[in-house]
Amino acid sequence: MYLSELVSRRFKETPADCQIQSQALMIRGGYIKAVGNGIYTLLTPGKRVIRKIENIVREEMDRIGGQEVLFPVAMPASLWRESGRYESIGSEMLRFKDRSGSDMVLGMTHEEAAVHLARDVVDSYTQFPFMIYQIQTKFRDEPRTRGGLIRVREFTMKDGYSFHTSQEDLEAYYARCYEAYNRIFARVGIPQVVAVASDSGMMGGKVSHEYMLLTDVGEDTIVLCPECGYRANMEAAPSVTQNEPGEEQPLQKVHTPGTKTIEELCALLHITPEQTCKAVMYQRNADDTPVVAFVRGDLDVNETKLRNHLGCEVHPAVYDEENAPLVLGFCGPMGLPQNVTVVFDSSLQGIECLTTGANEKDYHYTGFNIRRDVGEVSYVDVAKAKQGGVCPECGRHSLDLKRGIEVGNIFQLGDKYTKPMNMRYLAQDGSLQTPIMGCYGIGLGRLAASVCEVSRDDYGPIWPISIAPWQVHICVLRADQTEVAQAAKALYEELEGRGIEVILDDRAVSAGVMFSDADLLGVPVRVVVSPRALKNGALEVSLRDKSLQEKPAVAEVADFVEKLVRDELAKLDCRL
Amino acid sequence: MYLSELVSRRFKETPADCQIQSQALMIRGGYIKAVGNGIYTLLTPGKRVIRKIENIVREEMDRIGGQEVLFPVAMPASLWRESGRYESIGSEMLRFKDRSGSDMVLGMTHEEAAVHLARDVVDSYTQFPFMIYQIQTKFRDEPRTRGGLIRVREFTMKDGYSFHTSQEDLEAYYARCYEAYNRIFARVGIPQVVAVASDSGMMGGKVSHEYMLLTDVGEDTIVLCPECGYRANMEAAPSVTQNEPGEEQPLQKVHTPGTKTIEELCALLHITPEQTCKAVMYQRNADDTPVVAFVRGDLDVNETKLRNHLGCEVHPAVYDEENAPLVLGFCGPMGLPQNVTVVFDSSLQGIECLTTGANEKDYHYTGFNIRRDVGEVSYVDVAKAKQGGVCPECGRHSLDLKRGIEVGNIFQLGDKYTKPMNMRYLAQDGSLQTPIMGCYGIGLGRLAASVCEVSRDDYGPIWPISIAPWQVHICVLRADQTEVAQAAKALYEELEGRGIEVILDDRAVSAGVMFSDADLLGVPVRVVVSPRALKNGALEVSLRDKSLQEKPAVAEVADFVEKLVRDELAKLDCRL
Repeated sequence: MYLSELVSRRFKETPADCQIQSQALMIRGGYIKAVGNGIYTLLTPGKRVIRKIENIVREEMDRIGGQEVLFPVAMPASLWRESGRYESIGSEMLRFKDRSGSDMVLGMTHEEAAVHLARDVVDSYTQFPFMIYQIQTKFRDEPRTRGGLIRVREFTMKDGYSFHTSQEDLEAYYARCYEAYNRIFARVGIPQVVAVASDSGMMGGKVSHEYMLLTDVGEDTIVLCPECGYRANMEAAPSVTQNEPGEEQPLQKVHTPGTKTIEELCALLHITPEQTCKAVMYQRNADDTPVVAFVRGDLDVNETKLRNHLGCEVHPAVYDEENAPLVLGFCGPMGLPQNVTVVFDSSLQGIECLTTGANEKDYHYTGFNIRRDVGEVSYVDVAKAKQGGVCPECGRHSLDLKRGIEVGNIFQLGDKYTKPMNMRYLAQDGSLQTPIMGCYGIGLGRLAASVCEVSRDDYGPIWPISIAPWQVHICVLRADQTEVAQAAKALYEELEGRGIEVILDDRAVSAGVMFSDADLLGVPVRVVVSPRALKNGALEVSLRDKSLQEKPAVAEVADFVEKLVRDELAKLDCRL
Repeated sequence: MYLSELVSRRFKETPADCQIQSQALMIRGGYIKAVGNGIYTLLTPGKRVIRKIENIVREEMDRIGGQEVLFPVAMPASLWRESGRYESIGSEMLRFKDRSGSDMVLGMTHEEAAVHLARDVVDSYTQFPFMIYQIQTKFRDEPRTRGGLIRVREFTMKDGYSFHTSQEDLEAYYARCYEAYNRIFARVGIPQVVAVASDSGMMGGKVSHEYMLLTDVGEDTIVLCPECGYRANMEAAPSVTQNEPGEEQPLQKVHTPGTKTIEELCALLHITPEQTCKAVMYQRNADDTPVVAFVRGDLDVNETKLRNHLGCEVHPAVYDEENAPLVLGFCGPMGLPQNVTVVFDSSLQGIECLTTGANEKDYHYTGFNIRRDVGEVSYVDVAKAKQGGVCPECGRHSLDLKRGIEVGNIFQLGDKYTKPMNMRYLAQDGSLQTPIMGCYGIGLGRLAASVCEVSRDDYGPIWPISIAPWQVHICVLRADQTEVAQAAKALYEELEGRGIEVILDDRAVSAGVMFSDADLLGVPVRVVVSPRALKNGALEVSLRDKSLQEKPAVAEVADFVEKLVRDELAKLDCRL
């Protein structure tokens, strides 16, 4: 393709309100254009990148026996009522009525559709295991979109669903998919992606992993232990605490005027946050009834853990000072109203002497002892792991918290969908059994943006050749000179004839504009055709990442470039 | 792939309520499965067929310089308000509010999105012409779905949009696209598709064509002249009439009790329908006000023509006998209430003596003469062309009406979108101009179903090799015999190694089941591996359409099959 014909424009200025670099570069490079909040058109360069990612994903899914299907985007609500998710999923799922008045949803995930297909097709244990997948548009009404294609409302996703007759079989397939995902990330050029144990959220099931690309602009936090290799996301990482029990002391109410925060309290009483019992207030989404989680004062509550423990949705309490059912800033476990649900985090277990709110304005208790003053309680883990905290695997104070972008996830779903949707098969022993499932997702647009985020310089993306919009970029300086134009065109046609994807820039623009456009398009192999180069009989060939710069003789350029392209592709397990 | 692993099932019984054969075969063959009204999941064989169609379409679009992009499915209503279509399109377009309360639509076509992209990218005449296209899911809330993938609510479509600086340039590109479409239909195996002039409907613009596959189960009617080659759809075909003027007669009111239809009237008065002036009653959708179209008694009104003439939506009048504003069955042009809009079809022009309703129960007028009794009126063409009618091109009484499925359409849109959406470019003379557009659509699922409809026998589809789910189907009889299983597997691996797509059936089922499953999968090349064939040293190779049956020696089968596949592909301008 000739760059002059490309229906896409590059911009010098960084657009306003870009949160991250890849977003700015993908807008400036003419890859994406916002149509609405979290809704983008992909221009040709963007579409080409994503189609290459799609092909790699398809190859790897086929390699582990996946069969490609296509589920509908719009589905009757009845299907989602069967699984119970029509009710349980919140407003991020788009619901509508069709012209006949029937309830419909736009699929944000397709477990229900997968079971709907599979339960009619399969009836005997001999037909297991199998995996079906699709690559398709999804819509999720995200409350907060972010970072270009990183978090959008409409996106293209590969979602796969496997079916099994036993947990062992699911685990064996899950392991194959785990490896396939590693191959996908390696082949698109981000081998550094790590899999971390995760919470399964609305998907159900027990074991699940998220694939995380570590980067400071990531919106997820990952808990790593450099000592033993432990990895989990914040929801899945247990908060392990080693407590100083302290000495038991008598309970004493003390006047602590204006100390609404742990910091203020500690300053007044000359104690450490580890010696306090902090109240964090929530309300149930359903009826706004109060829930108070007590944690050690140096820790924070992880809402997902709390939600999973309670089995319902909650939000941080929204109370006015006047009409709150709790004494804001002075809340403690003793003397709470009857209707308050109380949760004690395990970080409080075994501490004999704590300071906590007295449920009375400007008063705290010191010498508080849960066992003595409240009685036997069950402790649950609802606190966030913290930097330097105790590794749940090796027990060292070694936890490191990093930011990351979730680029894929895999789940063991168990029978969460197959059971309510009544999928059965005839087992070897003649009995009717319910199969179990796994599911496997990758967002293609987010993956493209993630690669761009970690593979770029100040001037543009540095696309790995496996997903670059083109493989070779020919810059023609002084294309108005016939000899130059002809040499460039001959090279272009020779390379295209060899199956190489080439973009040729023969516009009458300055070398500066030409090179900065080439940087924004991020094509890995660059060839400069100029009067001087032709005079010297050698063309300049370089790699976008600056790792190579050579001047093969004109007659050898095509061979040189072809070999370079093949070698670079082979490094990423791809080929022409 | 091994058929035993295919997640798809074939059925012997024709499913209930199938309107057409291809629908039954695609359900029976495990290509599609209904999820809701007009909403289908594509199983692996169906997905494979459609992906091949997609690749052919993409190749042909790229060949005429198309650039692939991806527009969003969900779009802000503001974009559709700019063009005015948010208001003008009816309930087939899905509208919804997102979680922030903003109006959104699901795109059923993407002219607005194309202009939204193009107007930011292009600003000079030097950048024209160009064409951008996408292949993507669309949702259209069809009131009546039909025939499996023929008429659905959710479908995958290729839609392309070209931009031009002059009508000549648009016409030149339109002609290229016209040919590209012919190539697409030829390559997917239905070269018999014809392009017919069409009405542009909600798309706007003047010149447009529909590509029609002629088949009795089609839901569109096409007007053809076998004499001169004239072709149009019903909306676009002028109704040409050659009238007997007759002799002027005095107007006379006659008693015609109970003659509510033209047939009853003609029988009573011994006249022909050509001598009557028939009233066809409509109401405007907006306010239910009455519209009466008068046509010659032997003709019918084409609602699209009427709608285009009126410039608004109408529906057949829904009146009770008691409170109708018109005298049902006896309506005529004389003495109608003031608020009735009257339209005279050109078929009435020049007839001196007509019989028509007297707007009085059980009375008609004879000797009615429009010019004399009503005055000068404008005649417009709102009647349907009819079988044996006059060809508007050659003037012979030669019109033939056929049924067809619309498999594609192309439109010259003019500035219908670019003007209201304020797209401008700098022309060569320095002035700011509005470009004009063309648009080009093909529904991929409908195309697959259409091919199946005309390329099948009683036992299943006969897929053209260019779009068949696999190219070769190996039936293994007695796979329990090691020698047979090994020979089949060796052939399978040899062919797959040569890049041929093979499905192998080694199930322990009868030859009858195996062959009827193979018929339902419709794979063009079939190879039977059986103990007898191996003993004889030759395998049976045949084509699904029965045009070939040979027995190459075992050692030569792979070469024979490869050559057959290559030759069959080449016939459809495709290759391995």
